[in-house]
Amino acid sequence: MSPQQRTLHLNAFLMSTGHHEASWRLPESNPRASTDIRHYQNLAQIAERGTFDSIFFADSPVIFGDVGRRPAGKLEPTVLLTAIAAATEKIGLIATASTTYNDPFNLARRFASVDFVSGGRAGWNVVTTAGPEAARNFGIDDQPAHAARYERAAEFLEVAAKLWDSWEDDAVLADKEGGIWADSAKVRPINHVGKHFRVRGPLNVPRSPQGHPLIVQAGSSENGKGLAARYAEAVFTAQQTLEDAQAFYADLKARTVELGRTAESLKILPGIVPVIAPTQAEALRLERELDELIRPEYARAELANTLRVDPEDLPLDRQLPADLPDEDSIEGAKSRYTLIVELARREKLTVRQLIGRLGGGRGHLTFAGTPEQVADAIQLWFENGAADGFNIMPAVLPSGLETFVDQVVPVLRQRGLFRSEYTGSTLREHYGLERPANRFSAVGSLASAGA
Amino acid sequence: MSPQQRTLHLNAFLMSTGHHEASWRLPESNPRASTDIRHYQNLAQIAERGTFDSIFFADSPVIFGDVGRRPAGKLEPTVLLTAIAAATEKIGLIATASTTYNDPFNLARRFASVDFVSGGRAGWNVVTTAGPEAARNFGIDDQPAHAARYERAAEFLEVAAKLWDSWEDDAVLADKEGGIWADSAKVRPINHVGKHFRVRGPLNVPRSPQGHPLIVQAGSSENGKGLAARYAEAVFTAQQTLEDAQAFYADLKARTVELGRTAESLKILPGIVPVIAPTQAEALRLERELDELIRPEYARAELANTLRVDPEDLPLDRQLPADLPDEDSIEGAKSRYTLIVELARREKLTVRQLIGRLGGGRGHLTFAGTPEQVADAIQLWFENGAADGFNIMPAVLPSGLETFVDQVVPVLRQRGLFRSEYTGSTLREHYGLERPANRFSAVGSLASAGA
Repeated sequence: MSPQQRTLHLNAFLMSTGHHEASWRLPESNPRASTDIRHYQNLAQIAERGTFDSIFFADSPVIFGDVGRRPAGKLEPTVLLTAIAAATEKIGLIATASTTYNDPFNLARRFASVDFVSGGRAGWNVVTTAGPEAARNFGIDDQPAHAARYERAAEFLEVAAKLWDSWEDDAVLADKEGGIWADSAKVRPINHVGKHFRVRGPLNVPRSPQGHPLIVQAGSSENGKGLAARYAEAVFTAQQTLEDAQAFYADLKARTVELGRTAESLKILPGIVPVIAPTQAEALRLERELDELIRPEYARAELANTLRVDPEDLPLDRQLPADLPDEDSIEGAKSRYTLIVELARREKLTVRQLIGRLGGGRGHLTFAGTPEQVADAIQLWFENGAADGFNIMPAVLPSGLETFVDQVVPVLRQRGLFRSEYTGSTLREHYGLERPANRFSAVGSLASAGA
Repeated sequence: MSPQQRTLHLNAFLMSTGHHEASWRLPESNPRASTDIRHYQNLAQIAERGTFDSIFFADSPVIFGDVGRRPAGKLEPTVLLTAIAAATEKIGLIATASTTYNDPFNLARRFASVDFVSGGRAGWNVVTTAGPEAARNFGIDDQPAHAARYERAAEFLEVAAKLWDSWEDDAVLADKEGGIWADSAKVRPINHVGKHFRVRGPLNVPRSPQGHPLIVQAGSSENGKGLAARYAEAVFTAQQTLEDAQAFYADLKARTVELGRTAESLKILPGIVPVIAPTQAEALRLERELDELIRPEYARAELANTLRVDPEDLPLDRQLPADLPDEDSIEGAKSRYTLIVELARREKLTVRQLIGRLGGGRGHLTFAGTPEQVADAIQLWFENGAADGFNIMPAVLPSGLETFVDQVVPVLRQRGLFRSEYTGSTLREHYGLERPANRFSAVGSLASAGA
């Protein structure tokens, strides 16, 4: 497939006042935006004006760190995206939900319900939820081990897929004359019995417009890549250099093909924090001004927590200590851990400098420059085997998203890289992904070997 | 408190094409309404035009009986009500959720989120979910016993209330100058350790507009009444006669007062199925026509399941067998079981007649008559110690709700029994219920002994 035939995919990764941890302190920001539904509806409408494929919310069932630092409370994503669905028409809606701290029957139903009320725009970012802090909100003293969480995630996804297929697409007859509402032969128990779950089914909602919500994955550890290659249809990833992004892209596409899927059935979207200004110098100054609003004591405490060291062991004006734990011993967010340590070592950053880099995009790549420079960077990665699209993480919201939509999107459109209007109406259609066949229906079972 | 000073409360109990099981077969009905969000948004707007206090959806995480019989798939209620919130402004939104098959952290957060996006209109109908069928969707071979489910429900409610209070109302400082987003002293772990749950907290969302969502309860068993007297602020109940309703009302209010609450802090709303026509004869004919659309083999199978007998033991033209099990042995929906058996015995109904009665309102009272006659019945119960309001269960939707709003509500308003416009903007304000004080805050702890 030549670069010309491919279409760029853009997702807006939304987070209260923006991805920069100090964004809420800017005069323009609404510091109570995190619980204001109109703020989020406005962001989604901006992204929809920019014909983005989707918007996305990260999530974890716990508060990390100090609530003094930055907006800490979050609306539950399926509720939040449902309220946004009512204020938008086309844009896809991707909610994060944990397979470790949810139940497959309830969660499968919730995503099917969001898919119905949004007219086929639901996506699920599957996470396994790192950290003992979350576990303690669910009666568990310490988190399940990394591998065990991913094993449960895989079975969770199998159960969810079976439940979404437990009604055939044409099960509802609505035969008023004969008095038969649905064909009971096309609504089946799934009778799942596995290591982690026993679920009888069927689901208590018919098959939704997309069949299954779009499955998204964002972990880049070995376990994460394995799960993505098997189940994911879009992957969000943090990559700091073109070379790293190319290696990740090639590796994950190869793993996907090895499992009998096509390379195109999985879209890879690295995250970028665009800092846009009329000149590159102004963009860099904007970035510095934001970094100066970071209170380092909060940021250092979070860094210490991620690295599983004492904050006292991280003097602000020295580099990271040499004797950090190995990734293998980390049971939390493995790939994030490695990314941070490698970034600090590669660029010989002091703790203060590292905090500044992480404060902007928490490890994602910052592109600071003019609209053309940002578009150049996007095109470079897109055309050189590093990305199928990008996960846009504005440092400040709504202004950073508005600037991207008004200044970068037109450049991408002019270059023929990105759509000028929506051609489909479901999230799957935006990403160019097929509607999954039903594994239990007579026709579907022939066609859905890879579904 | 004299009858003149009290205000009637009205809740619209919504269910796809209506509460009559054959309603979907009518020419006017959309048989695919159960997954059509516009159908539900329209119903909510009709109820809001009638200044109803709230709308409500029942729910169970399982499909009961044969999907041929009637619309069987349901959208998950918190998702459904969030989509409705976006299409309405004032009306309260009550979702059913199970304490047996949910987790307190996730569910408390979900209701707080609905409360935020609706501007303080969320209510939670707390159910314990009867029946082994539901249990098997959650890896449990048989349902937990009735008493154990209610014990878990009580602890679940305690945990949820603590989580809703884990942020003080003024915890968010939004101090841009000082760089302090929230006061960490006002966001507390709850460190709950109980028989069923261990939850550290705090919740990951600030305290919501209503403090707590409105707590609703609908079980009328001994365990159900005990839970209601302690925690509920509104109770939905099925009562067939004025005398039974008066006895239930007096009993539940007395239990509530015994626990140190005021009688007014709990509102009791019996369910009624209004069948309205210009003359009583026409109303009765309308009712008969609907009953004739019931396919008895489906209805008999469900009745047999509720009574825990074989369908073969229920010949259509005979009365119920004499040797039915005692309520004490029923681990499912105890109060519903007793209501059905007493109705059949009191009125010496054949199985076919009983199916007709249950097909209309599943055990709730049917008022068939002119708008004035329906208003008379409502007034009689309201002014004679049987009800604080009613749970309106239209046999056919939307037409039955439209008729009630356009023809009965004006009569109730003329009589000074019901509001002509909303005076508050939250669900608690509609029901005349206080916003709960925060049990953990210095001021709140003095004021909230009963909260």
